Order: sequence, then structure tokens, then C-alpha cells
Amino acid sequence: MTAPKTDGPGRPRDPAADKAILRAAIDLLVERGVDQTSIEQIAKRAGVAKVTVYRRWRTKEDLFAQAIETARQDIPNTADADRPSEALPQVIADLLPRWGQVLAEPRFRALTARLLGAGPSHPKLLDAYRRHHVQPRRELARAAMIQAQADGVLSPSADVDMLIDMMTGAIMQHLLLEPEPLHPKDISDYLRRLLQQAGFTIA
Amino acid sequence: MTAPKTDGPGRPRDPAADKAILRAAIDLLVERGVDQTSIEQIAKRAGVAKVTVYRRWRTKEDLFAQAIETARQDIPNTADADRPSEALPQVIADLLPRWGQVLAEPRFRALTARLLGAGPSHPKLLDAYRRHHVQPRRELARAAMIQAQADGVLSPSADVDMLIDMMTGAIMQHLLLEPEPLHPKDISDYLRRLLQQAGFTIA
Repeated sequence: MTAPKTDGPGRPRDPAADKAILRAAIDLLVERGVDQTSIEQIAKRAGVAKVTVYRRWRTKEDLFAQAIETARQDIPNTADADRPSEALPQVIADLLPRWGQVLAEPRFRALTARLLGAGPSHPKLLDAYRRHHVQPRRELARAAMIQAQADGVLSPSADVDMLIDMMTGAIMQHLLLEPEPLHPKDISDYLRRLLQQAGFTIA
Repeated sequence: MTAPKTDGPGRPRDPAADKAILRAAIDLLVERGVDQTSIEQIAKRAGVAKVTVYRRWRTKEDLFAQAIETARQDIPNTADADRPSEALPQVIADLLPRWGQVLAEPRFRALTARLLGAGPSHPKLLDAYRRHHVQPRRELARAAMIQAQADGVLSPSADVDMLIDMMTGAIMQHLLLEPEPLHPKDISDYLRRLLQQAGFTIA
């Protein structure tokens, strides 16, 4: 992509350029981290002029915050919002291989480490991650757990919010601390053990 | 501290200078992170000449790895190795306020975020953290849990290794994702809920 010629002051933004810039920001965040990435490098990677970036975002942090907010494909949602027709223990068992696949992605693991690690120097970026990824996933997980309690697949006395912390925490820690490479099958086996220890009935 | 004059080639190292350098490295790791810290800044903070640092460590990464290895007071061990005389439920209840205090420390929280975040660019530093802090703490936690099972305070069918992941993961996630500031009392209340959901009997 070349610098969009029609993107002068007062003209409409170029959505393709915006998309390329946000994508380049995430790529460089994964590869180098926030502190080792400049606006200049992002512009270069996106194939646009530096001024195109500055016309749209005042600071590198603003740009990264929006890139994190819109990074839907890199921070996938492993919870399933649709109510499936099969019984929950079978649904969970069926989902495990897909979850293993998603969580084993080195790109996903690196991005998670970068975002959590950015907290002390860039609280605004951690906040974007928390609001646009962590919280919505928690809401889906909470709904799934309450459904599981209603279905008799999880103890009705479970402290659902704490159980979410324990399960997402175990996964997060596993992804950040286990040496590379992780294999999808090993992760889905790990998730099965995790669900069992958490008290779920799975098929 | 000034540059140790007796620290020439073939001369014994100056332990006080080494200690100041390692301490400065951890301070700057907490404040700025690995990538934003140079050997020059570490030498300056430690009050030694740059050459004193280079004589001892070939690279910034070697220096940080040793600083992480020796950072005992900044990465405290919350598990207790001594077998106390009281019953375990009471021991746990008594320890909660101290754990809350330790875990609420902003310095400890920042260091944890920096170390986990360093993984993608600096696997050697993550490895030092894993080997010298994470693994020894896991060993102590495992021993405590097996004792808890023997004492009838934790279900004998619990998957101890998974439970350690779930508990340390929940704490890690809580410390990294909760907005500042965290209060010791809130953390000890959180730990109490965590222990209860994990299946421990506590006083």
C-alpha cells in the first residue's frame, strides 16, 4: 500500500490505510514490544507516510491502544456465545482441540506477554487490553459457568468469579511460563485436566 | 560507592560493587524494563565505572540474568518451609495478612510484569525467573499441599500440580490485571476466597 493521496486535512480518512497501520502496530508489538517500536517503523511496515499516521493518532500510545482495541483476530475469544444443542459436557469435549490450537499459537502467546508486560510503563495499553479483551471474555465465561451450574455440570456452590480467575490464570501462566514450543494436543490435555480439577463434568 | 580501584584483571572481585550493580539492575528493571535500560545506566545508578560492569558481565542479558537469580528480597517466597506446630487451617489463616502485605507491594507487581513480559525478546531472562523463583516456589507449594492432604485439610483426590497452577495463576492474573493500588487487606480476602474455592479447610 502507498501513502493515500486523498488523505489531506478535512478529507475523509482512508479505511484501508488505517487498517494497515493498526495491523502493522500489532505485528511490531508482537515482534519487538511497545518500547522498541516507533511510529516511523509502524508507518514503514504499513507502507504509508509517517504524516499519515500522525494525522490520525497523536501519540504512539494512542495508536497502540486502538490497535489493541481492534485486534480481534489476534486475541481470539475461546468462549462460545451460542447456546449449542448438545449437552454441555459433550460441547466442552468437542471444543478442546480448537482451544488447544488457538492457545498454542506463538503469536497469541507473545502478544499476551507483551500486553501484560506493558502494564508498568504503559498503563493505558494494559487498560485497553483489560477493557476490550479480558472483560468481554470474562462475561462470556461467567455466562457459560452459570449455564453449567443450571445444567448440573458444575457445583451450584462454586464461587464462579474466583473459578474464572483460577482457570484463566492457570492458562495464562501456562502459556507465559512453559518453554517453547507448545503443542495443541498438550494444551487440550492440559485444559481437560484443568476443567476436571475445577469440578466440571466433561465427556 | 566509587569504582573499586583494586578490581583489575587477575585481582579479586569487589563483592560490594557486584552487589550494588545487581541491585541497580533490578531497580532499573522495575522502573524501566530490560529494553529501556543500558549497561551505562546501571553503572551510573550503582556508582561504578562502566568498565567495572563489563569486566564482570559480558552482556546486559548476562547481568540481568544474574540479577534475577539473586533477587531474593524482591521476589519473596510466600510459602513457608518450616513445619509449624499449629494445625494447618490456623497456620494458613495466620499467614494471610502477611501474604497480602507482600503481594500488594507495587515493586513486586511491577517486577512480575516485567519478567513475564520479557519472555518474547529475552527468553534467557524468563528462564532465570522460571528456574530460580517459579520452580522453587512450586516445590514448596507442592510439599505444603501434600501435607495438607495428609492432614485431611485438602481432598486426597486433588490434582496437586494443577491446583498449584490454578492458585498461582489466579494470584498472578489478579496482581497483573487489577488497577492500582491494591490493598493488603483486599488481597488477603482474595486469598481466603481462593483457598476456599480450591477446597482447603481454613480457620
